[in-house]
Amino acid sequence: MLESRGLARAMRAQLKTKIRLFAQERGYVPALRVLLVGEEEDSVLYAQNIVRWFSNLGLRSSLVTLPHDARIQQVMAEVSLASTDPDVHGLLVQMPLPSHLDYHEVFCALDALKDVEGLHPENIGLLASGQPRLVPSTPLAGMRLLDEYEVPLGGAEVVILGRSNVVGKPLAQLMLQRDASVTLLHSRSRDLVAHIRRADVVAAAVGRPKLVTGEMLKPGAVVLDFGINFVGGALVGDVAFDGAIARAAMITPVPGGIGPLTNLMLAENLLLAATLQADRADKLS
Amino acid sequence: MLESRGLARAMRAQLKTKIRLFAQERGYVPALRVLLVGEEEDSVLYAQNIVRWFSNLGLRSSLVTLPHDARIQQVMAEVSLASTDPDVHGLLVQMPLPSHLDYHEVFCALDALKDVEGLHPENIGLLASGQPRLVPSTPLAGMRLLDEYEVPLGGAEVVILGRSNVVGKPLAQLMLQRDASVTLLHSRSRDLVAHIRRADVVAAAVGRPKLVTGEMLKPGAVVLDFGINFVGGALVGDVAFDGAIARAAMITPVPGGIGPLTNLMLAENLLLAATLQADRADKLS
Repeated sequence: MLESRGLARAMRAQLKTKIRLFAQERGYVPALRVLLVGEEEDSVLYAQNIVRWFSNLGLRSSLVTLPHDARIQQVMAEVSLASTDPDVHGLLVQMPLPSHLDYHEVFCALDALKDVEGLHPENIGLLASGQPRLVPSTPLAGMRLLDEYEVPLGGAEVVILGRSNVVGKPLAQLMLQRDASVTLLHSRSRDLVAHIRRADVVAAAVGRPKLVTGEMLKPGAVVLDFGINFVGGALVGDVAFDGAIARAAMITPVPGGIGPLTNLMLAENLLLAATLQADRADKLS
Repeated sequence: MLESRGLARAMRAQLKTKIRLFAQERGYVPALRVLLVGEEEDSVLYAQNIVRWFSNLGLRSSLVTLPHDARIQQVMAEVSLASTDPDVHGLLVQMPLPSHLDYHEVFCALDALKDVEGLHPENIGLLASGQPRLVPSTPLAGMRLLDEYEVPLGGAEVVILGRSNVVGKPLAQLMLQRDASVTLLHSRSRDLVAHIRRADVVAAAVGRPKLVTGEMLKPGAVVLDFGINFVGGALVGDVAFDGAIARAAMITPVPGGIGPLTNLMLAENLLLAATLQADRADKLS
């Protein structure tokens, strides 16, 4: 089982040391700003949790909220403010944005070096051209877990279900860089089962509870479950775990697989972002 | 057969009209600059041809050359010059660059709105996030041809051989936007034949003469051949044409398939680039 809690504990300890060293060397602690548009309860809770989590790790963090009917100009103004403030090193825009706001437009106003979520076109482009810089935390967490368990990827058949900009598409790029043969599938794809059956690695990121079942898998496959679905109050993934674990060589449980690593990757992104900004300032001065 | 000469003629006529209208409305003709580093004979010929071809179409174009041992600073200076010159609307950097130059670094110095080749990280990122702006001309040519022949792509199994930044990877993004199921393969992939056999559309862009043969194809498949290989003085593609055409529903010949359309797509990119720059200037003023 691709259990991550042990790895998460070790990464957390390493990160704390890294943050301490960063602060000693440079005289400041990197700061995350979280921008929340709207009052949707889950989003508020999530944003508050992130802020607290970053603080507990030894990083600075703050929450800025805008009303759910904020105009795009207001949102862009907040993003510009975070971009120009030298005391903010990363901006996380809480998703989803209210439907009248275009997140592409929002991200274009962000300093690409403060884009800790890896959603600015420049960061997406660097990843897609084989020069990754700031990469979305969730697919990074998946790759980290595969490396921890030494899953070979060169020449492997990787089948990714879901083509979102935060998981499926960046994961495909990361897998390609590791020399995997990559297939990207989605809601319009036919023959999902035939694809899953031939896969050495299956990554499910579609948000459909238990879409992938054990009998679809090739015996010995490795399964990454990025699903976060609430069914009857319980958190379940996109993979039917019990059946899958009987057939897979390894599988990430939900919860306890990808999840515990994503915030850690986000915190690493904040450290990277702060370093990139310091390097840029050195160059300009 | 996915023959393109008729389409190319029609597109050329349309483009000439578009260029005339652009000039009438805005009072200037878009200008392409070609930057050539080195004296390699094929590259010189290609660059001169492009300049002439653009002029014949009614666009302006010029060639700037640097010696093969030009330092990165010199190259970047030329790129910056083109970026800031309001009388240059597109810069084409002749590939390949001498090996001591990093093309990623070069493209980062380019105004993204003058990047007619679609290789600036921002343009790559916009394409990869489903908001294409300036897209590499070769995969665009392939898509144009498929549309001309009304090849259905929604849910189709598309297998792409080759993961270059100029063909394979952007083609995968374009196919994904059209709701195809996309598999991207490369030199480290195993079982090429099994993948090709299940493909509704095969796109070959690896630069290996006649790698794809007729018996590998699913009967009725559509084949895009992006290969440009010189064998015994003759131009051949990545697909063994004679065998493939017996089995495929449609196939692009080499020469006469993708090739005649790529310069046309490049010229369309130049018009688009000039329009985007004019819009930006309007916004700023």
